[in-house]
Amino acid sequence: MQPVDPLDRWHHPPFEPVTSGDELRGRGASDDKGQVAMHLLAVKAHLAATGQNAPSVTLKLFVEGEEESGSPHLRKLLEDHRQDLVCDLVVFTDTALHERDAPTVNTGQRGVLGGEITFFGGADDVHSGRAGGAIPNPATALAKLIAALHSDDGRIALPGFYEDVREPSTQERADYAELPFDEQKWLAHNGGGAQALAGEPGYTTLERIWVRPTAEVNGLSSGYTGPGLKTIIPATATAKISFRLVPDQLPEKVADQLREFVAKHTPPGIRAEVSFRGEGVPPYAISPDDPANATVKEAMELAFDQPVRFARAGGSGPAAVLQAWLGVPLVYLGATLPDDRVHAPNERVVVPLLLKGAEAAAHLWRMLPERLTR
Amino acid sequence: MQPVDPLDRWHHPPFEPVTSGDELRGRGASDDKGQVAMHLLAVKAHLAATGQNAPSVTLKLFVEGEEESGSPHLRKLLEDHRQDLVCDLVVFTDTALHERDAPTVNTGQRGVLGGEITFFGGADDVHSGRAGGAIPNPATALAKLIAALHSDDGRIALPGFYEDVREPSTQERADYAELPFDEQKWLAHNGGGAQALAGEPGYTTLERIWVRPTAEVNGLSSGYTGPGLKTIIPATATAKISFRLVPDQLPEKVADQLREFVAKHTPPGIRAEVSFRGEGVPPYAISPDDPANATVKEAMELAFDQPVRFARAGGSGPAAVLQAWLGVPLVYLGATLPDDRVHAPNERVVVPLLLKGAEAAAHLWRMLPERLTR
Repeated sequence: MQPVDPLDRWHHPPFEPVTSGDELRGRGASDDKGQVAMHLLAVKAHLAATGQNAPSVTLKLFVEGEEESGSPHLRKLLEDHRQDLVCDLVVFTDTALHERDAPTVNTGQRGVLGGEITFFGGADDVHSGRAGGAIPNPATALAKLIAALHSDDGRIALPGFYEDVREPSTQERADYAELPFDEQKWLAHNGGGAQALAGEPGYTTLERIWVRPTAEVNGLSSGYTGPGLKTIIPATATAKISFRLVPDQLPEKVADQLREFVAKHTPPGIRAEVSFRGEGVPPYAISPDDPANATVKEAMELAFDQPVRFARAGGSGPAAVLQAWLGVPLVYLGATLPDDRVHAPNERVVVPLLLKGAEAAAHLWRMLPERLTR
Repeated sequence: MQPVDPLDRWHHPPFEPVTSGDELRGRGASDDKGQVAMHLLAVKAHLAATGQNAPSVTLKLFVEGEEESGSPHLRKLLEDHRQDLVCDLVVFTDTALHERDAPTVNTGQRGVLGGEITFFGGADDVHSGRAGGAIPNPATALAKLIAALHSDDGRIALPGFYEDVREPSTQERADYAELPFDEQKWLAHNGGGAQALAGEPGYTTLERIWVRPTAEVNGLSSGYTGPGLKTIIPATATAKISFRLVPDQLPEKVADQLREFVAKHTPPGIRAEVSFRGEGVPPYAISPDDPANATVKEAMELAFDQPVRFARAGGSGPAAVLQAWLGVPLVYLGATLPDDRVHAPNERVVVPLLLKGAEAAAHLWRMLPERLTR
């Protein structure tokens, strides 16, 4: 669960849910209490519709309550309960529909690898009148490294970086192209008020955030950053950098590529340190043609009563880890919206969508036994 | 006067001068109480040696006590006392000898122009999973601008930047080459512990800091800079940048060149702001062949009883402003050392050098009337 702050921007107490039109508002309404409730409603609907005493498939509901805190106990819990969690399919619910009128089945999430690069020059900041022009400047050197990280056409210049990148299928690209996309709305909402689109040539915006890897500078710090000016050559310069990765890139391989790149771009007189935060999160995608995934789409179309397209998510999650750990496919089922204000004041969930999501899950439990033969 | 902090690194109370060998220690001993005393001793010596009741030239001693605080009242004071300050020559004392055993006459100081560049992307930092790869990153864009500020050979790439740069004379370069220069000592002392020399090809280290202009990044800030990682695309990125300038560069012209450069290197979707701290300090240099300057050298050689070479200073000062304002040449006379720990704990001045400086000034007052006919 995310914290409530800034509390003063909530229009009502965050932990006392209120309804507004077809919305239910409160901390966690969308991420992810709403979708937990969706699954409980789904079981109820499934049993009522089939007249059965038990679901058509054996359901094991696993609710991870520490996801927003880095899941410190997840790995041990999975290991301790390995036998209890044996299954044929994982249905993962932490993703959203593309838009209210454009329901989608998510088929993947990007991985992530992040860390920081520090360039060390002298032991101290140096007055630029004493040495300016005659010793290396770590900030300038780091800027040159960052500039070299992308080629002029916007592609990432780490040697070998694209080697393992799996192209999306023709069907996936066609699906993405048919999804509604309003550039100005997307810039204002997803882009945080960005003033223009930018990115790798040959790919649409949705492709850039769903199926293409990226390298982002997340932060820079060096030298004097207070008011006014201090004419120094900084002793150090640091960049925080993260990569979003796509199948079949491996975080550990990209980490090696970055280490080599930094070594190559460290000029004489500068010492570099590269560190990573953890081992990264691997990317995950499941083919739209996978029988389990096709079944999810069919169940969604029955519930939403309209065409459902495949989509992906630009963020990261433990899908690849779960899939590898349990050795079975993982599919996504979610019915929230990208503009639900998750992690922000006045988080909401759209109740009719949640009910359709429950209906889709109820169909899924009914259909799975006949579609999956393992 | 610089503050005393860190007080705990002083070995004695900063304002109670103590002697240690041939040194006198205390805040301001070298910068610049010592050199004020030097001029008073010089007048005394000059009168004693000549047997005169008045100096051979009319001396107007001007002690600026606010130099370390940005000289807030200097301009008005100069304007209010314009008539009192009319003179034929300014002798400026705020520079040092090259080394204890290598006395030098300073012939110039670099100018300085500093400011900051901010790149604005969106209104807020954006989660890199939502938009990473599809909107411009201000930190990456700023790094590309900084990288472009120098060409691969280390020269500054602002169009027209070198147009007004005056090459040092053959004699000046020969003088600089004869000065003692210990690379490791220089790196440890002037370079603040830098690990290697670097800079514009075709120039020595002393030339790089004395007669060549430079562009330095003084600070960088963007996005998240705390512990760990935050996978965001920053909303803004800022670089503090300063230029050291050499004759005949004009700060206002370089400011225009930077503004144009930033405009050219601002990518679509990014808005740039450039601001300067004040109007900058113009560079100043006087030819070694100027009769006043040649006289200073001769006076120094009489006092130090060894060859004196011409040198310059890499820092900045009001020489050009004073020279332009009074309309007469400005020469430098100083007898402190670069390793006097000015602005730092345990500042010292070497007393025998101060006395030789006083002797040089006494000679100078005697020699000037016959050497300068105006």
